[in-house]
Amino acid sequence: MPRPANPLVRENLLNAGLALFHAQGYNAVGIKEITDTAGVPKGSFYSYYGSKNAFAAAVLGRYWTGIVQTHSAILSDASLPPAQRVVRFFEALTQDHAEQGFALGCLIGNLALELSDQNEEAREELASIMARWSALVAGCLAEARDEGGAVETPEAGELASMVIEAWEGAAMRGRVDRSRAPYDRFLTVSLPRLIGVAHAQV
Amino acid sequence: MPRPANPLVRENLLNAGLALFHAQGYNAVGIKEITDTAGVPKGSFYSYYGSKNAFAAAVLGRYWTGIVQTHSAILSDASLPPAQRVVRFFEALTQDHAEQGFALGCLIGNLALELSDQNEEAREELASIMARWSALVAGCLAEARDEGGAVETPEAGELASMVIEAWEGAAMRGRVDRSRAPYDRFLTVSLPRLIGVAHAQV
Repeated sequence: MPRPANPLVRENLLNAGLALFHAQGYNAVGIKEITDTAGVPKGSFYSYYGSKNAFAAAVLGRYWTGIVQTHSAILSDASLPPAQRVVRFFEALTQDHAEQGFALGCLIGNLALELSDQNEEAREELASIMARWSALVAGCLAEARDEGGAVETPEAGELASMVIEAWEGAAMRGRVDRSRAPYDRFLTVSLPRLIGVAHAQV
Repeated sequence: MPRPANPLVRENLLNAGLALFHAQGYNAVGIKEITDTAGVPKGSFYSYYGSKNAFAAAVLGRYWTGIVQTHSAILSDASLPPAQRVVRFFEALTQDHAEQGFALGCLIGNLALELSDQNEEAREELASIMARWSALVAGCLAEARDEGGAVETPEAGELASMVIEAWEGAAMRGRVDRSRAPYDRFLTVSLPRLIGVAHAQV
Protein backbone atom coordinates (compact mmCIF):
# COMPACT_ATOMS: atom_id res chain seq x y z
CA MET A 1 0.00 0.00 0.00
CA PRO A 2 1.69 3.24 -1.15
CA ARG A 3 1.94 6.11 1.28
CA PRO A 4 -1.20 8.23 0.93
CA ALA A 5 -0.63 11.40 -1.03
CA ASN A 6 -3.41 13.39 0.52
CA PRO A 7 -4.52 13.23 4.15
CA LEU A 8 -7.74 15.05 3.25
CA VAL A 9 -8.77 12.15 1.03
CA ARG A 10 -8.22 9.73 3.89
CA GLU A 11 -10.27 12.02 6.13
CA ASN A 12 -13.09 12.21 3.60
CA LEU A 13 -13.10 8.43 3.16
CA LEU A 14 -13.29 7.87 6.94
CA ASN A 15 -16.11 10.37 7.37
CA ALA A 16 -18.03 8.87 4.44
CA GLY A 17 -17.53 5.34 5.76
CA LEU A 18 -18.63 6.31 9.24
CA ALA A 19 -21.86 7.93 8.03
CA LEU A 20 -22.69 5.12 5.58
CA PHE A 21 -21.84 2.18 7.87
CA HIS A 22 -23.76 3.78 10.71
CA ALA A 23 -26.85 4.35 8.57
CA GLN A 24 -26.80 1.14 6.52
CA GLY A 25 -24.36 -1.35 8.05
CA TYR A 26 -21.18 -2.75 6.52
CA ASN A 27 -22.26 -5.31 3.96
CA ALA A 28 -25.00 -3.11 2.53
CA VAL A 29 -22.48 -0.41 1.52
CA GLY A 30 -20.14 -0.82 -1.45
CA ILE A 31 -16.75 0.80 -1.98
CA LYS A 32 -18.12 2.89 -4.85
CA GLU A 33 -20.76 4.39 -2.55
CA ILE A 34 -18.02 5.26 -0.08
CA THR A 35 -15.76 6.89 -2.68
CA ASP A 36 -18.73 8.69 -4.29
CA THR A 37 -19.78 10.08 -0.91
CA ALA A 38 -16.19 11.07 -0.17
CA GLY A 39 -15.92 12.72 -3.60
CA VAL A 40 -12.87 10.74 -4.67
CA PRO A 41 -12.29 8.28 -7.57
CA LYS A 42 -13.16 4.67 -6.73
CA GLY A 43 -9.67 3.55 -7.72
CA SER A 44 -8.09 5.71 -5.03
CA PHE A 45 -9.66 3.66 -2.19
CA TYR A 46 -6.97 1.00 -2.31
CA SER A 47 -4.20 3.60 -2.19
CA TYR A 48 -5.41 4.36 1.31
CA TYR A 49 -6.77 1.06 2.63
CA GLY A 50 -5.64 -2.44 1.79
CA SER A 51 -9.17 -3.83 1.97
CA LYS A 52 -12.72 -2.96 2.92
CA ASN A 53 -12.12 -5.01 6.10
CA ALA A 54 -9.14 -2.85 7.06
CA PHE A 55 -11.20 0.24 6.27
CA ALA A 56 -13.97 -0.96 8.63
CA ALA A 57 -11.39 -1.23 11.42
CA ALA A 58 -10.19 2.32 10.68
CA VAL A 59 -13.76 3.67 10.67
CA LEU A 60 -14.38 2.06 14.06
CA GLY A 61 -11.21 3.67 15.38
CA ARG A 62 -12.42 7.03 14.12
CA TYR A 63 -15.86 6.57 15.74
CA TRP A 64 -14.29 5.67 19.07
CA THR A 65 -11.85 8.59 18.90
CA GLY A 66 -14.81 10.90 18.33
CA ILE A 67 -16.51 9.61 21.48
CA VAL A 68 -13.34 10.02 23.53
CA GLN A 69 -12.69 13.53 22.24
CA THR A 70 -16.28 14.67 22.77
CA HIS A 71 -17.23 12.99 26.01
CA SER A 72 -14.32 11.52 27.97
CA ALA A 73 -13.61 14.80 29.77
CA ILE A 74 -16.81 14.23 31.77
CA LEU A 75 -15.18 11.17 33.33
CA SER A 76 -12.33 13.21 34.80
CA ASP A 77 -14.42 16.21 35.90
CA ALA A 78 -13.25 16.53 39.49
CA SER A 79 -16.16 18.87 40.29
CA LEU A 80 -18.55 15.88 40.18
CA PRO A 81 -18.61 12.73 42.33
CA PRO A 82 -17.19 9.87 40.25
CA ALA A 83 -20.41 7.82 40.08
CA GLN A 84 -22.23 10.89 38.82
CA ARG A 85 -19.59 11.36 36.12
CA VAL A 86 -20.34 7.86 34.84
CA VAL A 87 -24.04 8.64 34.68
CA ARG A 88 -23.36 11.96 32.92
CA PHE A 89 -21.10 10.20 30.41
CA PHE A 90 -23.84 7.77 29.41
CA GLU A 91 -26.39 10.59 29.37
CA ALA A 92 -24.16 12.38 26.87
CA LEU A 93 -23.99 9.26 24.68
CA THR A 94 -27.79 9.00 24.93
CA GLN A 95 -28.06 12.56 23.70
CA ASP A 96 -25.92 11.63 20.66
CA HIS A 97 -28.27 8.77 19.89
CA ALA A 98 -31.32 11.00 20.42
CA GLU A 99 -30.03 13.28 17.67
CA GLN A 100 -30.36 10.32 15.29
CA GLY A 101 -33.90 9.59 16.49
CA PHE A 102 -32.56 6.42 18.21
CA ALA A 103 -32.62 4.83 14.74
CA LEU A 104 -28.91 4.18 14.24
CA GLY A 105 -27.72 2.82 17.60
CA CYS A 106 -24.03 2.59 18.45
CA LEU A 107 -21.70 1.91 15.52
CA ILE A 108 -19.49 -0.22 17.78
CA GLY A 109 -22.38 -2.51 18.68
CA ASN A 110 -23.77 -2.55 15.16
CA LEU A 111 -20.52 -3.66 13.58
CA ALA A 112 -19.72 -5.99 16.49
CA LEU A 113 -22.76 -8.03 15.58
CA GLU A 114 -22.49 -7.70 11.82
CA LEU A 115 -18.76 -8.33 11.44
CA SER A 116 -17.33 -10.35 14.32
CA ASP A 117 -17.60 -13.63 12.50
CA GLN A 118 -16.48 -12.49 9.06
CA ASN A 119 -13.88 -9.79 9.53
CA GLU A 120 -10.98 -10.52 11.84
CA GLU A 121 -9.43 -7.05 11.49
CA ALA A 122 -12.67 -5.38 12.57
CA ARG A 123 -13.19 -7.92 15.36
CA GLU A 124 -9.76 -7.19 16.83
CA GLU A 125 -10.38 -3.44 16.65
CA LEU A 126 -13.78 -3.92 18.31
CA ALA A 127 -12.25 -6.00 21.11
CA SER A 128 -9.59 -3.32 21.60
CA ILE A 129 -12.14 -0.48 21.65
CA MET A 130 -14.33 -2.29 24.17
CA ALA A 131 -11.30 -2.93 26.38
CA ARG A 132 -10.29 0.75 26.23
CA TRP A 133 -13.86 1.84 26.90
CA SER A 134 -14.04 -0.46 29.92
CA ALA A 135 -10.73 0.91 31.24
CA LEU A 136 -11.97 4.49 30.83
CA VAL A 137 -15.15 3.86 32.82
CA ALA A 138 -13.34 1.62 35.31
CA GLY A 139 -11.18 4.54 36.41
CA CYS A 140 -14.26 6.41 37.60
CA LEU A 141 -15.82 3.35 39.19
CA ALA A 142 -12.64 2.66 41.14
CA GLU A 143 -12.69 6.26 42.42
CA ALA A 144 -16.37 5.94 43.36
CA ARG A 145 -15.56 2.77 45.25
CA ASP A 146 -12.68 4.39 47.12
CA GLU A 147 -14.93 7.26 48.16
CA GLY A 148 -18.01 5.24 48.96
CA GLY A 149 -16.40 2.32 50.73
CA ALA A 150 -18.39 -0.08 48.55
CA VAL A 151 -17.66 -3.80 48.38
CA GLU A 152 -14.59 -4.60 46.31
CA THR A 153 -15.93 -7.37 44.13
CA PRO A 154 -16.25 -7.46 41.20
CA GLU A 155 -13.19 -5.38 40.36
CA ALA A 156 -13.83 -2.06 38.63
CA GLY A 157 -12.83 -3.28 35.16
CA GLU A 158 -15.36 -6.11 35.29
CA LEU A 159 -18.04 -3.77 36.58
CA ALA A 160 -17.29 -1.24 33.83
CA SER A 161 -17.61 -4.00 31.24
CA MET A 162 -21.02 -4.98 32.62
CA VAL A 163 -22.17 -1.37 32.48
CA ILE A 164 -21.01 -1.00 28.87
CA GLU A 165 -22.61 -4.30 27.89
CA ALA A 166 -25.93 -3.24 29.43
CA TRP A 167 -25.61 0.08 27.60
CA GLU A 168 -25.05 -1.67 24.27
CA GLY A 169 -28.10 -3.86 24.86
CA ALA A 170 -30.17 -0.77 25.65
CA ALA A 171 -28.99 0.89 22.44
CA MET A 172 -29.91 -2.27 20.53
CA ARG A 173 -33.45 -2.33 21.93
CA GLY A 174 -33.78 1.42 21.42
CA ARG A 175 -32.93 0.95 17.77
CA VAL A 176 -35.42 -1.89 17.30
CA ASP A 177 -38.19 0.02 19.08
CA ARG A 178 -37.12 3.46 17.79
CA SER A 179 -37.49 4.56 21.37
CA ARG A 180 -35.57 6.23 24.16
CA ALA A 181 -37.30 4.06 26.79
CA PRO A 182 -34.44 1.48 26.97
CA TYR A 183 -31.91 4.31 27.38
CA ASP A 184 -33.99 5.87 30.16
CA ARG A 185 -34.33 2.64 32.11
CA PHE A 186 -30.60 2.01 31.67
CA LEU A 187 -29.78 5.46 33.06
CA THR A 188 -32.28 5.46 35.92
CA VAL A 189 -32.35 1.81 37.02
CA SER A 190 -29.80 -0.54 35.43
CA LEU A 191 -26.78 1.71 35.77
CA PRO A 192 -27.35 2.62 39.45
CA ARG A 193 -28.12 -1.00 40.32
CA LEU A 194 -25.06 -2.29 38.50
CA ILE A 195 -22.65 0.18 40.04
CA GLY A 196 -24.24 -0.28 43.44
CA VAL A 197 -25.38 3.21 44.27
CA ALA A 198 -28.90 4.36 44.97
CA HIS A 199 -30.32 6.56 42.24
CA ALA A 200 -30.63 9.44 44.66
CA GLN A 201 -26.83 9.44 45.05
CA VAL A 202 -26.12 9.86 41.33
CA MET B 1 -47.79 -15.18 -3.43
CA PRO B 2 -49.20 -18.61 -4.36
CA ARG B 3 -50.00 -21.05 -1.61
CA PRO B 4 -46.88 -23.16 -0.94
CA ALA B 5 -47.16 -26.66 -2.34
CA ASN B 6 -44.74 -28.31 0.04
CA PRO B 7 -44.36 -27.52 3.73
CA LEU B 8 -41.05 -29.40 3.79
CA VAL B 9 -39.55 -26.92 1.35
CA ARG B 10 -40.61 -24.05 3.59
CA GLU B 11 -39.10 -25.90 6.55
CA ASN B 12 -35.82 -26.47 4.70
CA LEU B 13 -35.66 -22.83 3.64
CA LEU B 14 -36.21 -21.62 7.22
CA ASN B 15 -33.58 -23.96 8.62
CA ALA B 16 -31.09 -22.96 5.92
CA GLY B 17 -31.78 -19.27 6.47
CA LEU B 18 -31.41 -19.62 10.22
CA ALA B 19 -28.03 -21.35 9.98
CA LEU B 20 -26.68 -19.00 7.30
CA PHE B 21 -27.91 -15.72 8.82
CA HIS B 22 -26.63 -16.78 12.23
CA ALA B 23 -23.19 -17.66 10.88
CA GLN B 24 -22.77 -14.85 8.34
CA GLY B 25 -25.41 -12.17 8.90
CA TYR B 26 -28.19 -11.12 6.54
CA ASN B 27 -26.59 -9.01 3.85
CA ALA B 28 -23.65 -11.38 3.39
CA VAL B 29 -25.97 -14.25 2.38
CA GLY B 30 -27.67 -14.39 -1.02
CA ILE B 31 -30.91 -16.13 -1.91
CA LYS B 32 -29.04 -18.66 -4.07
CA GLU B 33 -26.94 -19.69 -1.06
CA ILE B 34 -30.14 -20.18 0.93
CA THR B 35 -31.86 -22.26 -1.74
CA ASP B 36 -28.67 -24.27 -2.41
CA THR B 37 -28.34 -25.04 1.31
CA ALA B 38 -32.03 -25.95 1.48
CA GLY B 39 -31.63 -28.15 -1.59
CA VAL B 40 -34.37 -26.43 -3.58
CA PRO B 41 -34.32 -24.53 -6.91
CA LYS B 42 -33.55 -20.81 -6.56
CA GLY B 43 -36.77 -19.94 -8.39
CA SER B 44 -38.89 -21.62 -5.74
CA PHE B 45 -37.88 -19.10 -3.04
CA TYR B 46 -40.44 -16.52 -4.14
CA SER B 47 -43.23 -19.11 -4.11
CA TYR B 48 -42.76 -19.24 -0.37
CA TYR B 49 -41.63 -15.74 0.61
CA GLY B 50 -42.50 -12.47 -1.03
CA SER B 51 -39.06 -11.00 -0.39
CA LYS B 52 -35.77 -11.64 1.38
CA ASN B 53 -36.96 -9.10 3.96
CA ALA B 54 -40.11 -11.11 4.68
CA PHE B 55 -37.99 -14.25 4.85
CA ALA B 56 -35.72 -12.63 7.48
CA ALA B 57 -38.79 -11.93 9.61
CA ALA B 58 -39.89 -15.56 9.27
CA VAL B 59 -36.41 -16.84 10.20
CA LEU B 60 -36.45 -14.67 13.32
CA GLY B 61 -39.85 -16.08 14.24
CA ARG B 62 -38.48 -19.59 13.83
CA TYR B 63 -35.41 -18.79 16.00
CA TRP B 64 -37.59 -17.36 18.76
CA THR B 65 -40.01 -20.31 18.61
CA GLY B 66 -37.03 -22.63 19.04
CA ILE B 67 -35.95 -20.80 22.19
CA VAL B 68 -39.47 -20.89 23.62
CA GLN B 69 -39.92 -24.60 22.85
CA THR B 70 -36.53 -25.55 24.26
CA HIS B 71 -36.21 -23.33 27.29
CA SER B 72 -39.42 -21.58 28.36
CA ALA B 73 -40.53 -24.53 30.52
CA ILE B 74 -37.78 -23.57 32.98
CA LEU B 75 -39.63 -20.32 33.64
CA SER B 76 -42.74 -22.11 34.84
CA ASP B 77 -40.99 -24.85 36.83
CA ALA B 78 -42.83 -24.58 40.14
CA SER B 79 -40.18 -26.68 41.89
CA LEU B 80 -37.76 -23.73 41.74
CA PRO B 81 -38.07 -20.25 43.28
CA PRO B 82 -39.01 -17.80 40.49
CA ALA B 83 -35.76 -15.77 40.62
CA GLN B 84 -33.79 -18.98 40.29
CA ARG B 85 -35.85 -19.95 37.23
CA VAL B 86 -34.82 -16.72 35.54
CA VAL B 87 -31.16 -17.46 36.26
CA ARG B 88 -31.55 -21.04 34.98
CA PHE B 89 -33.23 -19.77 31.81
CA PHE B 90 -30.29 -17.51 30.97
CA GLU B 91 -27.85 -20.25 31.93
CA ALA B 92 -29.58 -22.48 29.37
CA LEU B 93 -29.24 -19.79 26.69
CA THR B 94 -25.57 -19.42 27.65
CA GLN B 95 -25.14 -23.15 27.12
CA ASP B 96 -26.60 -22.79 23.60
CA HIS B 97 -24.09 -20.06 22.84
CA ALA B 98 -21.26 -22.12 24.34
CA GLU B 99 -22.02 -24.85 21.82
CA GLN B 100 -21.16 -22.33 19.08
CA GLY B 101 -17.93 -21.35 20.83
CA PHE B 102 -19.50 -17.95 21.66
CA ALA B 103 -18.75 -17.00 18.05
CA LEU B 104 -22.29 -16.49 16.73
CA GLY B 105 -24.07 -14.60 19.50
CA CYS B 106 -27.86 -14.28 19.55
CA LEU B 107 -29.56 -14.15 16.14
CA ILE B 108 -32.12 -11.71 17.52
CA GLY B 109 -29.43 -9.25 18.57
CA ASN B 110 -27.37 -9.80 15.43
CA LEU B 111 -30.24 -9.03 13.07
CA ALA B 112 -31.54 -6.25 15.33
CA LEU B 113 -28.35 -4.35 14.69
CA GLU B 114 -27.88 -5.32 11.07
CA LEU B 115 -31.46 -4.81 9.87
CA SER B 116 -33.39 -2.35 12.02
CA ASP B 117 -32.70 0.56 9.75
CA GLN B 118 -33.14 -1.16 6.40
CA ASN B 119 -35.84 -3.79 6.82
CA GLU B 120 -39.13 -2.71 8.35
CA GLU B 121 -40.64 -6.22 8.29
CA ALA B 122 -37.72 -7.63 10.26
CA ARG B 123 -37.69 -4.64 12.62
CA GLU B 124 -41.35 -5.15 13.48
CA GLU B 125 -40.81 -8.87 14.08
CA LEU B 126 -37.78 -8.07 16.27
CA ALA B 127 -39.79 -5.56 18.31
CA SER B 128 -42.55 -8.16 18.72
CA ILE B 129 -40.10 -10.90 19.76
CA MET B 130 -38.42 -8.65 22.31
CA ALA B 131 -41.80 -7.68 23.74
CA ARG B 132 -42.84 -11.36 24.01
CA TRP B 133 -39.48 -12.26 25.56
CA SER B 134 -39.88 -9.47 28.12
CA ALA B 135 -43.40 -10.65 28.97
CA LEU B 136 -42.17 -14.22 29.45
CA VAL B 137 -39.43 -13.20 31.88
CA ALA B 138 -41.65 -10.60 33.54
CA GLY B 139 -44.03 -13.32 34.68
CA CYS B 140 -41.28 -14.91 36.76
CA LEU B 141 -40.01 -11.59 38.07
CA ALA B 142 -43.50 -10.63 39.22
CA GLU B 143 -43.77 -13.95 41.08
CA ALA B 144 -40.35 -13.40 42.65
CA ARG B 145 -41.45 -9.98 43.77
CA ASP B 146 -44.67 -11.29 45.29
CA GLU B 147 -42.72 -13.91 47.24
CA GLY B 148 -39.83 -11.70 48.27
CA GLY B 149 -41.71 -8.55 49.11
CA ALA B 150 -39.26 -6.53 47.03
CA VAL B 151 -39.87 -2.92 46.07
CA GLU B 152 -42.47 -2.54 43.34
CA THR B 153 -40.69 -0.18 40.99
CA PRO B 154 -39.80 -0.60 38.24
CA GLU B 155 -42.67 -2.84 37.18
CA ALA B 156 -41.76 -6.40 36.21
CA GLY B 157 -42.03 -5.83 32.44
CA GLU B 158 -39.53 -2.97 32.58
CA LEU B 159 -37.20 -5.01 34.76
CA ALA B 160 -37.44 -7.98 32.40
CA SER B 161 -36.56 -5.70 29.48
CA MET B 162 -33.48 -4.45 31.33
CA VAL B 163 -32.39 -8.01 32.04
CA ILE B 164 -32.82 -9.01 28.39
CA GLU B 165 -30.99 -5.90 27.19
CA ALA B 166 -28.06 -6.62 29.51
CA TRP B 167 -28.07 -10.21 28.26
CA GLU B 168 -27.94 -9.07 24.64
CA GLY B 169 -25.02 -6.77 25.43
CA ALA B 170 -23.20 -9.64 27.12
CA ALA B 171 -23.76 -11.84 24.07
CA MET B 172 -22.41 -9.05 21.87
CA ARG B 173 -19.23 -8.68 23.92
CA GLY B 174 -18.86 -12.45 24.13
CA ARG B 175 -18.98 -12.63 20.35
CA VAL B 176 -16.40 -9.88 19.92
CA ASP B 177 -14.06 -11.39 22.51
CA ARG B 178 -14.92 -15.03 21.63
CA SER B 179 -15.27 -15.49 25.37
CA ARG B 180 -17.73 -16.71 27.95
CA ALA B 181 -16.54 -14.07 30.46
CA PRO B 182 -19.31 -11.55 29.62
CA TYR B 183 -21.92 -14.31 30.00
CA ASP B 184 -20.48 -15.33 33.36
CA ARG B 185 -20.46 -11.81 34.74
CA PHE B 186 -24.02 -11.33 33.49
CA LEU B 187 -25.16 -14.51 35.28
CA THR B 188 -23.28 -13.97 38.52
CA VAL B 189 -23.35 -10.18 38.97
CA SER B 190 -25.50 -8.19 36.52
CA LEU B 191 -28.57 -10.39 36.64
CA PRO B 192 -28.75 -10.65 40.47
CA ARG B 193 -28.10 -6.91 40.84
CA LEU B 194 -30.73 -6.01 38.26
CA ILE B 195 -33.44 -8.21 39.71
CA GLY B 196 -32.52 -7.17 43.21
CA VAL B 197 -31.59 -10.44 44.82
CA ALA B 198 -28.28 -11.41 46.37
CA HIS B 199 -26.42 -14.04 44.39
CA ALA B 200 -26.66 -16.47 47.30
CA GLN B 201 -30.45 -16.41 46.95
CA VAL B 202 -30.46 -17.44 43.28
